[in-house]
Amino acid sequence: MNKFSAMKAALVPPWWPRYRKDYIRHDVIAGLIVALMLIPQGLAYATLAGVPPQYGLYASLLPVVLYALFGSSAVMSVGPVAITSLLTASALAALSLDSVTDYVAASALLAFASGIFLFAAGLLRLGAVAQLLSHPVVNAFISGAALLIIISQLKPLLGLHFTGHSTIDNVTGLVRHIGETNLLATVVGVISLAVFILSRKHTVPLLKAIGLSRNVAVTIQRMMPMLMLLLGALLVYLFDWQSSMAVVGELPRGTPTFSVPAIRGDWLAQLWLPAIVIGLLGFVESISIAQSFAQKARQPLDANAELRALGAANVGSALASGFPVTGGFSRTLVNADAGAHSPLSGVFSAGFVLLSLWFATELFAYLPITILAATIIAAALQLVNAETFLHAWRYDRAEAAAMIGTASGVLLLGVEAGIAIGVALSIMTVVWRTSRPHIAVVGLVPGTEHFRNVNRHQVETSAQVLMVRIDENLVFANAEPVSRELLSLVERSVHCTDLVLLMSSVSRIDVTAVEMLEHLNDELLRRDIRLHLAEVKGPVSDQLNSCSLPQRLSGKIFLTGYLAFRHLTRTDEPAL
Amino acid sequence: MNKFSAMKAALVPPWWPRYRKDYIRHDVIAGLIVALMLIPQGLAYATLAGVPPQYGLYASLLPVVLYALFGSSAVMSVGPVAITSLLTASALAALSLDSVTDYVAASALLAFASGIFLFAAGLLRLGAVAQLLSHPVVNAFISGAALLIIISQLKPLLGLHFTGHSTIDNVTGLVRHIGETNLLATVVGVISLAVFILSRKHTVPLLKAIGLSRNVAVTIQRMMPMLMLLLGALLVYLFDWQSSMAVVGELPRGTPTFSVPAIRGDWLAQLWLPAIVIGLLGFVESISIAQSFAQKARQPLDANAELRALGAANVGSALASGFPVTGGFSRTLVNADAGAHSPLSGVFSAGFVLLSLWFATELFAYLPITILAATIIAAALQLVNAETFLHAWRYDRAEAAAMIGTASGVLLLGVEAGIAIGVALSIMTVVWRTSRPHIAVVGLVPGTEHFRNVNRHQVETSAQVLMVRIDENLVFANAEPVSRELLSLVERSVHCTDLVLLMSSVSRIDVTAVEMLEHLNDELLRRDIRLHLAEVKGPVSDQLNSCSLPQRLSGKIFLTGYLAFRHLTRTDEPAL
Repeated sequence: MNKFSAMKAALVPPWWPRYRKDYIRHDVIAGLIVALMLIPQGLAYATLAGVPPQYGLYASLLPVVLYALFGSSAVMSVGPVAITSLLTASALAALSLDSVTDYVAASALLAFASGIFLFAAGLLRLGAVAQLLSHPVVNAFISGAALLIIISQLKPLLGLHFTGHSTIDNVTGLVRHIGETNLLATVVGVISLAVFILSRKHTVPLLKAIGLSRNVAVTIQRMMPMLMLLLGALLVYLFDWQSSMAVVGELPRGTPTFSVPAIRGDWLAQLWLPAIVIGLLGFVESISIAQSFAQKARQPLDANAELRALGAANVGSALASGFPVTGGFSRTLVNADAGAHSPLSGVFSAGFVLLSLWFATELFAYLPITILAATIIAAALQLVNAETFLHAWRYDRAEAAAMIGTASGVLLLGVEAGIAIGVALSIMTVVWRTSRPHIAVVGLVPGTEHFRNVNRHQVETSAQVLMVRIDENLVFANAEPVSRELLSLVERSVHCTDLVLLMSSVSRIDVTAVEMLEHLNDELLRRDIRLHLAEVKGPVSDQLNSCSLPQRLSGKIFLTGYLAFRHLTRTDEPAL
Repeated sequence: MNKFSAMKAALVPPWWPRYRKDYIRHDVIAGLIVALMLIPQGLAYATLAGVPPQYGLYASLLPVVLYALFGSSAVMSVGPVAITSLLTASALAALSLDSVTDYVAASALLAFASGIFLFAAGLLRLGAVAQLLSHPVVNAFISGAALLIIISQLKPLLGLHFTGHSTIDNVTGLVRHIGETNLLATVVGVISLAVFILSRKHTVPLLKAIGLSRNVAVTIQRMMPMLMLLLGALLVYLFDWQSSMAVVGELPRGTPTFSVPAIRGDWLAQLWLPAIVIGLLGFVESISIAQSFAQKARQPLDANAELRALGAANVGSALASGFPVTGGFSRTLVNADAGAHSPLSGVFSAGFVLLSLWFATELFAYLPITILAATIIAAALQLVNAETFLHAWRYDRAEAAAMIGTASGVLLLGVEAGIAIGVALSIMTVVWRTSRPHIAVVGLVPGTEHFRNVNRHQVETSAQVLMVRIDENLVFANAEPVSRELLSLVERSVHCTDLVLLMSSVSRIDVTAVEMLEHLNDELLRRDIRLHLAEVKGPVSDQLNSCSLPQRLSGKIFLTGYLAFRHLTRTDEPAL
């Protein structure tokens, strides 16, 4: 029995025990609304990833169902998103494949590898790795990638045809081929883009002004991409525009065939690293979204369950020859707003996508590519986030510089180089800051036992006893400058007989720094100055006891700076 | 006049103004003693670097003179050393050159590029970069490289001949070819090695016991490599051993030709990175030696002047077709002990090397290779440092692990891979530790204003006011776990109404962590808990004022933890 209930617990999705029958109505409605967004986005992101449009719909079927089984967020909508589609295109471009069949097979292999990696990372409980990316760097990466997407989509928006994948190729191509702009495509695309951008702010007030209820107005606004696509398809059909501008073209009707993708060693050798990068970045994007919604809804969120769920979702995408997927911001927002109560809403939206594959493929034939490009550009514009950059610029120039490095890396060198630069810059910022520690000469704040910087506060000091606070962990990267700074401080204090280091900020002393302190102790002894430590934290003190520094120290280790100061300045006042 | 004295100041070496006439006698004697070490070492390290032996002497001429012009250490002896010779061999092996002429030209180009890099780094005042290597990692690198050298020199010691550069090649080669051991070479080599090792401890007492003065005894001990080589050469000459074992062979008599090395683009493309690595590691080795002697002699040392001096020395080596050089530990020790008063002693030792090139080249013809191998092994044995590893193991397992990674990287993957692993592990240790911050619930130590860990000390606490000390800078790598830990702490304190974060250890809050604190503030507010900060340091406080956190904070920012505790526990006692 116990075994059975354990098995049952492992198989039952985490949200199921809390599910109530009356949730189902909300989940069906939310599922329909999300499907009406998911269909145009799926078609658009498939073209962004470089695969035929129907694969965007195939990638929207199993992932939501599998996420519902494993995931912990109630409102997350998993499927094709802009960034992972872009990364997919970039990873597959490196393979230089000729046939569309190969391209589709390789993209499915990429999703499969990425899914296996994510699932394994979830089983190994590696959910914490996402925290090793700094928010400004992630933001800069997303903004850079969004700009890259916008630039790449100007080509289909203007109805141009030229080769080249990189930003520089795209920009020079646009300049060179601007004379070949397809006027009809441009007019349709730009109008659609303007409608998408303006409708975000103005549709709801406008529709309410003409008497519609808020709910109806909001629903119409959400279906705007679908409405514009349908309108575009109608115009193409009526005026035979398919000869003058690019359309999606007829898609194969019906369900895709499900099969495990072919594991080709030569592709895998080139795809395993992109698969990990895509998996990680998709996870970072998805978990940020899930966290913000979980915080609002005060629902628990398990990072490792999310890893497993996204892993399963990607494997699911691969089984239908789809490409890598993850949680998307706009659809999740819509899903939550539409009243989704559980991941079951995602299952319903997958159902509606399936219905469209059975009954609406002729309709897709007339969809203008330029409107898909406008859909992508409108979504990407929302990802460009200058505010975080301005905030970082005001708060910390180094982080702002890391953001510029990351974003320009993405734009000029490509997405993988950009994220590598971002991670390296994040880590270098930590090491660089550590290597330039702040050291403050401090004095006693009168009437307290507290020491503060002599340059900032009116404090009590002593000519003999130099109290110095070290504002950084002592590690190899700063051992040498700390030693130099301390020696130059005692040289400037001619009457100094005792140097007290306030270790309240020091949480770690590594081997290099212990050697530095031993040398410093000897060096000071030669100048008849004793070295004391105070406010050494428990873990640091434990560690120091395993080396010879405490025995070699010319001075003492005091519990507090106040005790050290009172003792060394030899006033016999009681300590308090 | 002013211009002239400025020019004079720039051209006059830093030690010259302090030079006294009676120093010269000491410098000549020290120069001779160092030369008697430098000649066998130069020949040996040339074979280690893979160039004909005479180039080790050529590399010992200009570098010392140029170091004397630019350097700031009085006793540093610059020339061929084991580690840079090994790195040279490894860098040149990658070029797969056929002719000795090419090999020599490429090694000179390597020294030239390395010199230009070091000189430029000195002009750009980059002397501080050396501190970015942790001592344990540098130690592990040196120990690993020394083991690599020892293993590689067993082949000439045993008179074996087989191809292969890597440690694995050398070990399997030794096992496979052990039957071809040259008995004569082995006996001569092993006896020499035993003499070198034993003489270090026993020569001086022994010679003193037979009535020699301490000074004479020490001088004889230092000349031991030279004496053994001369004895070996004599035996070879008398018994015609050159047919039964490898000897150096006749060297070209006289001064090398001086010329700027040919700058071949195809070589430079492969050598620029090794040139930087060799320059940096040579600098780290040299500056550590210079520092320890400067500390003893209480002489000033300028890291940027050292960079320029080593840069000039390497360019000087290249001009005589030499290979990369740096400051060597054993020769510097001997130079200092022999009473060198200025870098002029180096100029004299260069002069003695030059004399040997004019008058002693026939002698070198009979020098047995196996004794050179014994010289290298004896020197390398001194570099293997297990003590630092044991110290690190007791003090900090993570650093000991980084040492194992570095040393095994050097041994198994080669010197460049080893140092790359070491640097990456050093930096990862910092980031990893930062990402696992120590957080302590603290209470008031009775009778003081000082807060300590409730688990380690008998302290006063409050059920309503939770005082928490964060023992780490708040950065992206730990923002998420800190937030999680704080929320779980307040969840366990059911009566908590106020959370006070003691920021005494926090010297930096990055953008990611500020966002975390804002979310934490909102999250706590929803649970009716106010968030307060105390003991915020000046620089952190300045930075926080440029963002919205102080305004959004539900609680207050207190000067000290004591004031916060007294105020929030609402006792109306004055805060002392």
